[in-house]
Amino acid sequence: MKAWSITEPGGVEKLIQEERPTPLPTNGEVLIKVKAFGINRTEILTRENKQLEAPYPVLGIEVAGEIIENRSNRTDLEPGTRVAGLVIQGSYQEYAVMPAEFAMILPENLTYEEGAAIPEVFLTAYQTIYWLGDLKKDESILIHAGASGVGTAAIQMAKQLSDAKIFSTSSRKEKLDKMKELGTDFPINYKEEDIAKRVLEETNDEGVDVILDFIGASYYDLNLKSAKIDSRWILIGTLGGSEVEQFNILDIMQKRIHLKGTLLTPRSNAYKGELTKEFVKNVMPYFATGEIQAIIHEVVDFSELPKAHQMMENNVNIGKIIVKISE
Amino acid sequence: MKAWSITEPGGVEKLIQEERPTPLPTNGEVLIKVKAFGINRTEILTRENKQLEAPYPVLGIEVAGEIIENRSNRTDLEPGTRVAGLVIQGSYQEYAVMPAEFAMILPENLTYEEGAAIPEVFLTAYQTIYWLGDLKKDESILIHAGASGVGTAAIQMAKQLSDAKIFSTSSRKEKLDKMKELGTDFPINYKEEDIAKRVLEETNDEGVDVILDFIGASYYDLNLKSAKIDSRWILIGTLGGSEVEQFNILDIMQKRIHLKGTLLTPRSNAYKGELTKEFVKNVMPYFATGEIQAIIHEVVDFSELPKAHQMMENNVNIGKIIVKISE
Repeated sequence: MKAWSITEPGGVEKLIQEERPTPLPTNGEVLIKVKAFGINRTEILTRENKQLEAPYPVLGIEVAGEIIENRSNRTDLEPGTRVAGLVIQGSYQEYAVMPAEFAMILPENLTYEEGAAIPEVFLTAYQTIYWLGDLKKDESILIHAGASGVGTAAIQMAKQLSDAKIFSTSSRKEKLDKMKELGTDFPINYKEEDIAKRVLEETNDEGVDVILDFIGASYYDLNLKSAKIDSRWILIGTLGGSEVEQFNILDIMQKRIHLKGTLLTPRSNAYKGELTKEFVKNVMPYFATGEIQAIIHEVVDFSELPKAHQMMENNVNIGKIIVKISE
Repeated sequence: MKAWSITEPGGVEKLIQEERPTPLPTNGEVLIKVKAFGINRTEILTRENKQLEAPYPVLGIEVAGEIIENRSNRTDLEPGTRVAGLVIQGSYQEYAVMPAEFAMILPENLTYEEGAAIPEVFLTAYQTIYWLGDLKKDESILIHAGASGVGTAAIQMAKQLSDAKIFSTSSRKEKLDKMKELGTDFPINYKEEDIAKRVLEETNDEGVDVILDFIGASYYDLNLKSAKIDSRWILIGTLGGSEVEQFNILDIMQKRIHLKGTLLTPRSNAYKGELTKEFVKNVMPYFATGEIQAIIHEVVDFSELPKAHQMMENNVNIGKIIVKISE
């Protein structure tokens, strides 16, 4: 079986395709013939992680494919079933194992590439918006990096499930246009406009109920200004650095802000299983009707995987970068 | 009617007893003959607030007393009923008005002085431990300033309602002894012991589930070390300053901490009413049986009110400073 790992931690050139034994599912797991998988920033961090020691793992955290063997109690996962979901032990490979509770059955209208674009970004967006952000109907939300994988997922769910007033940010016209198409009410070009000023203008000087913050330190002040009293501000990334220069506890107390840090990958299987179950119930029907879509930037062939990493590093994607395994 | 206000913002010497008209209850309110009231730090801040302009308000936010007139739909608040609760328009006076939903009927075994020691500190502690901290049975909690009014209330509820593993801190032996008597498992003298080290030793290196933080900036690092993964860290005071020098978003993300700022006084009447209602249902029975007690440091006569402010500023109290209005 072919799989992608690294020769040693480092740049794109350290990625290597190797022969590995086909993984064996244990009780409670399914074996999947992988048809497609998504690329995530966490894999770039793993690839570059100098603390990592040999033997190096197969990279990747999500797949779409066909069930080959079902070693769980779930009777809806017979061989041949088309599924997508998170995995624990690598996705950049021809076969992968998955805890059965992570498997989402794909609606007929979705391709495997589309299925592979769902798990990580949609589950992360769902977790942050609803489990942590507690977004309620008709509330407002500020989504930074709105054209990213998680951003495009967040915009669609906030609009379709909650009819939220959505603010999202980018610096490129084509990204801002896409956000608007997906449901953003106020796409903001942060190079041309003061984000907090616009948010306050459009919310009667109150600010937003929820902030999805992938940026971190460099946006700390503007997020604080944009946060409403009793708002939920979810920390899920530090693209703009992690060290906040002026953090004043009174600001957080006076606005009664709930500042919540989160990461999805290190969570327990039980947590991810519960999240998957609720997501399937509340959101998968919208994929079946086409009201919510998997947003794919480009599909790259399995043999050209380093190109997919390079693309993510260049940060030009709108939505997901997907790798496809052809027959 | 006699009432305490200020001649101008400033020190204890600016407090003045004046004649004021008896307040008139409007629809939804009750008029109370005040028998006792508690002193809170917020009144010191109001007294010192240079932004305040004349006419200056009657100070104070909580009372215990006898109902004189009931202008609400509540049929259990007939004249003569003994109640305690928060007030909006001053408590340092012989008569006060109270929104009816704030009134807690006092169990027979409690004196007015004890009743006056309940509302602000117990409601604040209940809100922070349960509504914000979501403390569950058998979880662990770190309570700074454990001998304060809110601290003594928090320790008792965390023990009686949740059987929590309780850490609380002080620097004085008599305060540490009192915390232990009230239910603290690990009273920590911060002058003699490293708080975070002790917390980690006693929690299998995991840290605590909930932190009640009255201290702020000067304890930021030790609170971060003491916080468990998925912990709830509630910011309710800045006795140790408010500007955190090194705030790193990754720390909050990696431990998936929920950092929640709060203040009770500026909340809406609806919020305080709901909080009072739940508190009466879940906690007042423990007062009736004596399992939870109002902790009173000293009772001062109405005529000597400045002495009560001085006492609070000296920070020597264990539990509440109460002012009593004699016949």
